Amino acid sequence: MDINGVQIEDTFAEAFPIKMARVQITAATERWALEAAREATGFGTSVIGCPAEAGIERVVGGEETPDGRPGVNIMICNMGYKNLETSLLFRLGQCVLTAPTTAAWSGMPDAEKKFDTGKKLKFFGDGYEKQAQMYGRTVWKIPLMSGDFVIEESFGAVDGIAGGNFLIMGQNQMAALTAAEVAVNAISKLKGTITPFPGGVVSSGSKVGSKYKFLKASTNTAFCTSLREDGVCTLAEDVSAVYEIVINGVSKEAISTAMKAGINAACRVPGILKITAANYEGKLGTHQFPLHVVLE
Amino acid sequence: MDINGVQIEDTFAEAFPIKMARVQITAATERWALEAAREATGFGTSVIGCPAEAGIERVVGGEETPDGRPGVNIMICNMGYKNLETSLLFRLGQCVLTAPTTAAWSGMPDAEKKFDTGKKLKFFGDGYEKQAQMYGRTVWKIPLMSGDFVIEESFGAVDGIAGGNFLIMGQNQMAALTAAEVAVNAISKLKGTITPFPGGVVSSGSKVGSKYKFLKASTNTAFCTSLREDGVCTLAEDVSAVYEIVINGVSKEAISTAMKAGINAACRVPGILKITAANYEGKLGTHQFPLHVVLE
Amino acid sequence: MDINGVQIEDTFAEAFPIKMARVQITAATERWALEAAREATGFGTSVIGCPAEAGIERVVGGEETPDGRPGVNIMICNMGYKNLETSLLFRLGQCVLTAPTTAAWSGMPDAEKKFDTGKKLKFFGDGYEKQAQMYGRTVWKIPLMSGDFVIEESFGAVDGIAGGNFLIMGQNQMAALTAAEVAVNAISKLKGTITPFPGGVVSSGSKVGSKYKFLKASTNTAFCTSLREDGVCTLAEDVSAVYEIVINGVSKEAISTAMKAGINAACRVPGILKITAANYEGKLGTHQFPLHVVLE
Amino acid sequence: MDINGVQIEDTFAEAFPIKMARVQITAATERWALEAAREATGFGTSVIGCPAEAGIERVVGGEETPDGRPGVNIMICNMGYKNLETSLLFRLGQCVLTAPTTAAWSGMPDAEKKFDTGKKLKFFGDGYEKQAQMYGRTVWKIPLMSGDFVIEESFGAVDGIAGGNFLIMGQNQMAALTAAEVAVNAISKLKGTITPFPGGVVSSGSKVGSKYKFLKASTNTAFCTSLREDGVCTLAEDVSAVYEIVINGVSKEAISTAMKAGINAACRVPGILKITAANYEGKLGTHQFPLHVVLE
Repeated sequence: MDINGVQIEDTFAEAFPIKMARVQITAATERWALEAAREATGFGTSVIGCPAEAGIERVVGGEETPDGRPGVNIMICNMGYKNLETSLLFRLGQCVLTAPTTAAWSGMPDAEKKFDTGKKLKFFGDGYEKQAQMYGRTVWKIPLMSGDFVIEESFGAVDGIAGGNFLIMGQNQMAALTAAEVAVNAISKLKGTITPFPGGVVSSGSKVGSKYKFLKASTNTAFCTSLREDGVCTLAEDVSAVYEIVINGVSKEAISTAMKAGINAACRVPGILKITAANYEGKLGTHQFPLHVVLE
Repeated sequence: MDINGVQIEDTFAEAFPIKMARVQITAATERWALEAAREATGFGTSVIGCPAEAGIERVVGGEETPDGRPGVNIMICNMGYKNLETSLLFRLGQCVLTAPTTAAWSGMPDAEKKFDTGKKLKFFGDGYEKQAQMYGRTVWKIPLMSGDFVIEESFGAVDGIAGGNFLIMGQNQMAALTAAEVAVNAISKLKGTITPFPGGVVSSGSKVGSKYKFLKASTNTAFCTSLREDGVCTLAEDVSAVYEIVINGVSKEAISTAMKAGINAACRVPGILKITAANYEGKLGTHQFPLHVVLE
Repeated sequence: MDINGVQIEDTFAEAFPIKMARVQITAATERWALEAAREATGFGTSVIGCPAEAGIERVVGGEETPDGRPGVNIMICNMGYKNLETSLLFRLGQCVLTAPTTAAWSGMPDAEKKFDTGKKLKFFGDGYEKQAQMYGRTVWKIPLMSGDFVIEESFGAVDGIAGGNFLIMGQNQMAALTAAEVAVNAISKLKGTITPFPGGVVSSGSKVGSKYKFLKASTNTAFCTSLREDGVCTLAEDVSAVYEIVINGVSKEAISTAMKAGINAACRVPGILKITAANYEGKLGTHQFPLHVVLE
Repeated sequence: MDINGVQIEDTFAEAFPIKMARVQITAATERWALEAAREATGFGTSVIGCPAEAGIERVVGGEETPDGRPGVNIMICNMGYKNLETSLLFRLGQCVLTAPTTAAWSGMPDAEKKFDTGKKLKFFGDGYEKQAQMYGRTVWKIPLMSGDFVIEESFGAVDGIAGGNFLIMGQNQMAALTAAEVAVNAISKLKGTITPFPGGVVSSGSKVGSKYKFLKASTNTAFCTSLREDGVCTLAEDVSAVYEIVINGVSKEAISTAMKAGINAACRVPGILKITAANYEGKLGTHQFPLHVVLE
């Protein structure tokens, strides 16, 4: 199978279950919604070493937000609901409540699982906070120096999937990286997924385990182009750089759609030689996304 | 005292000691250095609820970086050196090592206090990592799928100051917020300081303590414009919005310079009525920045 | 009539016929399509003194472009088809042909009126240009140093409308300007319209004619807030700044939709007092857009 | 000679005299100064087909502007002073006067050659314009709907140089383009130069003349990678894409400094094979910039 002359390997991406919440941040301007969203989703690439996995899902116009203001949908993910509740509390309290002109709305109002994050953050109002009904939602209005901060009382969360992925093999670093940028850009317009790594791109693909006992994951030596002379690198001769796109999503469908859009976009960049995916013989996760099926 | 017709209150900003490290992130392009920097400094507004306070200090050209590539200087701050070491390890390991084309250099190579962050992160190389000398620095080269990640072996840190601040009082929200944006922009070109809140601006100014015993800080009720009818708000009638700029810096001089630049810039925006500063009767910190002295 | 507490004056926007062409610029990345689009639409605010009126219509994903690459739709407008043909030739030849990785496609392939802009620009290939069929379009491939530049042979154009507008009256400059930014942002997501002024906003609203005989248009003295003491300004006391949004579009429907979206967005910004529109007793144009009808 | 392993050809860039004016645009925020600057310098890549060559020189802080507000320095260039005067009049009148919160200042106040652009644009004030002294400059205050537009009475211009250049040869398109981006970014921080093409990069390098008699310039066939089979392309086998950076500047020194900074930056991007420059046996211009001298 190939797309635009780029070979698509017959393999699959291996992914694992995660818990995730969508928060809709609105603000006076799209710029300020984005500032809050970036702060709230930073230090959030991988649960291996970050307090959460987080990212911007997409920018939304006033016609998609409760208060009619421009907004940004973000998603925050943790391995369990307890950690997710903590992440919501601290990320919304420290990065959205503190951001100018913002309000915070549940982006999954119909989810069964709910956290009363707004009810807990209301205490910052020091007794002057007030419960209210706005746009069909139960909210708390917390007085701030620049007006009231509005936050929904409870935030929904669902069972999602983390670690959907594909790898872009390029003739050189800049070709592979530009294709990665284009893939992330295509995914950023879709609903239901985030690409939590910096700028959406992973430069440090890993394998499960290491020769060092204390490490759960280490560099994907078989794909390290500087280890050719060591006989460790198994990449074809013409490949000199590989970037990975990691995708978390609300469902198998959302991740499949994002993989397809990203791969199609990447294959239009000159200098891309092959697309593959990362899997770990089932050591990492239970979900499989075969590239040839996803791209049908 | 006034600047451009804006009254400068005769008061002072109260600040407190903190530990801080500067990291210089370089990349193939300025864009990618910024992506890594944003990820590495996110979820980093206040140590009250974030694992660190962090921000972008400034963008630097190739003439200021060891490897001659474009770069971004960031600063990471914690209350003690132990927490700072942890923050460096996880933020560099998860947000810079993972980011395309980046390298990480100590931005305080002459500091006495040093953390061997690079030496610890090298294990990701699974035995193929190599120590080297580059541009007069001792580094580790860790093989990745897109080439080697270069990280300096040790990172310097110093005693710094957190919580330098000033408050911008405006005729309305958009005037105050635009002035805040302009102030942050002016500070972003200076050396030695960061403004760790979202987009550099704090909308949720606080006082020490609360009627709720379990809360260490709560909204600054005296400045909450929606509490006028409650008789709690002490702001002048014509003020309807207040934003705060919080500044962390390497020294009293750095913070003073940043406060001066930020206040001067803010006072050129139409609709700004008064500049003041936040202090807490010594309950928060030992450093004082009197506005009239800083602005001399 | 009011929206979110903002009064909507019972008046109408006066607009006039214009000729317009849509060009779809694709590139390896969205960033580079935007660079080409900005260059090609610059110096294009008003036909009073610019060679054309031009602007970015919206960003489009690969699913909406012939070659599946990211793109930006621009629109170029002139009073007559002859000037429009000249504008297309020079703006595409100087600003898109010259831009890295771009291709240029007709954004109105079904229009009756057609210009053979691609056929004329092909001569740059110095005899090595080649006609081809790509994605159902007849194109010319012009060899460049970085590969072939692909341009469609002919570009469609239609009768459109220029000068759709509304005015935002604010308590002060920053409130009015932020509302203008938000309105332009809302319009930028819609099909069929551009806002050709800098950043989409007009600060220099005008009236037809002047005391100086050689001037066709001069400042809208009745709305100049600094002329209150001269007795010329007729604005209400609480209004201290007014910005105008000017909209060109392919049809009455497109302009009406854009006006509605822009006004709704502007009315959500604090400090906005009133929305009105500019008309000139029929001296300027034949199209009328009554605000209360547009907002139904 | 080589830099970072990239061969620097022993050749020279050929450039020609031009007339140029610097305009300093200030605004309430850096963002709005940039919007005005982009509009005013658009459709300005080459005098072959644009009404002027124009570009952003650099962003300046309040400490470098007369009114202490953030600013952007732009440069506008034409072959003669008469055309330059026309360009200034229309570009400032249509793209800066119309832009929110801007003011326009001469960026060459000490130049002998002066145009009374402000004195001519004042008529827009319809008799209510007023001459004033501000910050040591003679200005006109023109009443607008959002306040007064301030423009300096006269703008200085000097003899400059256009067409300074270098060419980046890459293993593929994305490597060459990323190096071009990095070069332009390095040049954008320097004083005295602009890179007038889209995003600063030229994809359509040309030779003087053509087989078509009516064309003064046509594609640089010898460097067209798609003409290898025609036997026309003289590029080495491993080069598959070439981008050019064109630089206009106020002096030989300014252009030399920019070429050096740009080439040094480009040579740090992986996949770059060679740097050369464009010259035309003296048919184009009288200025020569030998690469090996510039890089000393």
